[in-house]
Amino acid sequence: MCEVLPTPAQPPAALTFEPIGIIRSPYKEKFAVPRQPGLVNSATAQLEMLPPYNEPSAFRGLAEFSHLWLVFLFHQTQDKGWNPTVRPPRLGGNERVGVFATRSTFRPNPIGLSVVTLLDMCKSGNKVWLELGGVDLVDGTPILDIKPYLPWVDSVPDARGGFAPAPPDLNMEIIFSAAAELACARSDIPNLKEFISEVLVQDPRPAYKKQLQQWQQYGVRLYHYNVTFEVFGHLTRVLDIVPEP
Amino acid sequence: MCEVLPTPAQPPAALTFEPIGIIRSPYKEKFAVPRQPGLVNSATAQLEMLPPYNEPSAFRGLAEFSHLWLVFLFHQTQDKGWNPTVRPPRLGGNERVGVFATRSTFRPNPIGLSVVTLLDMCKSGNKVWLELGGVDLVDGTPILDIKPYLPWVDSVPDARGGFAPAPPDLNMEIIFSAAAELACARSDIPNLKEFISEVLVQDPRPAYKKQLQQWQQYGVRLYHYNVTFEVFGHLTRVLDIVPEP
Repeated sequence: MCEVLPTPAQPPAALTFEPIGIIRSPYKEKFAVPRQPGLVNSATAQLEMLPPYNEPSAFRGLAEFSHLWLVFLFHQTQDKGWNPTVRPPRLGGNERVGVFATRSTFRPNPIGLSVVTLLDMCKSGNKVWLELGGVDLVDGTPILDIKPYLPWVDSVPDARGGFAPAPPDLNMEIIFSAAAELACARSDIPNLKEFISEVLVQDPRPAYKKQLQQWQQYGVRLYHYNVTFEVFGHLTRVLDIVPEP
Repeated sequence: MCEVLPTPAQPPAALTFEPIGIIRSPYKEKFAVPRQPGLVNSATAQLEMLPPYNEPSAFRGLAEFSHLWLVFLFHQTQDKGWNPTVRPPRLGGNERVGVFATRSTFRPNPIGLSVVTLLDMCKSGNKVWLELGGVDLVDGTPILDIKPYLPWVDSVPDARGGFAPAPPDLNMEIIFSAAAELACARSDIPNLKEFISEVLVQDPRPAYKKQLQQWQQYGVRLYHYNVTFEVFGHLTRVLDIVPEP
């Protein structure tokens, strides 16, 4: 298969892209963002279009599609460069594989790709936005493109998935303290308890923390709350859920 | 679902991307490029990595994946701007739908997305390239990113596909003239006849030409050949296949 290539390739010119929209999601920091789309579904996100892309006619016919591709910027890591190899959490954070064999956020061009569900299209004044489900993007993520998901093109159920052939095992048990239960019951966010459970069952800790043989405490910002929790083995205890000051 | 959005979004800064590789494919012009990946499989394409991305370790582990995502530039249309609505060939070229409900090449950011099969990884001297199948990219297409296809994330076989829910009907019959048959038999390209048939069965003519009630002649550059053919109704006749001067 590997015949010698002909004449050298002419490197094409660089190109500048302008964000067309911005994501509003409950994930206020990179820690605890699901590692792939579709893993956490009890929360919606909004994709707000920026002018001049807030033109309702640009979305005509989109509602007939159930799923969309979002092409986005890894804006929180975009200035941090890339390495030829990375250590995916899926391999315990020890083994190195090539960056192009992973979905790592540290890549030559910091472009991300997510398939999400389209729940609604909205318009109010001169604002136009999409309501989306299954989003794995941190709040403020700039969007470069939106494409319809075409199942006969994009769906390859028998594809071989290398070192990540199946969804991660979710064998974490989540329990809530009385204070955390109360905060959920009083919150203006519907399904807050379910959402926090779905996020934490993913075990967002960095791989090297998972070896710890003792309770360790963590905090994460979700919606306008500071959520504190502790983990030991396969048990996560939500300690408290406090509105941000 | 459409609650009012909070504070206005802060438009994020534009970002410049540098191509990491370049496609070599038999499609020497946009006419006759398959309209989606995976429709023409009897030809391979090469993705040649550009320095400094021609680092073999960046591909470690990639061979365990059967399919890849290519994020690429629509370089032949990138300077032509965008319109909020486009007329997809799938709807006969008459009906207008929103650009974000299509895979049109004329978009706010001219970014394309294709799933292709990974056939081989190659190295020769300081050249590194991938052999790919099912490619729908014109020769010279700049590549921005390569990601592994993860079936449990990317495959949504039940997604609703809007105005393009299934592959196009391929009811074109292809016949070859004696001269065209001979040119295929003598060519250094294996499967040239099969490849040309697979390309032409897609009916690459623009939608408005499909109404013509007479034979009409066309030419297309595939590999290093000028291929001439004529079409009337559901019959395509390959007239001649001549090496380019």
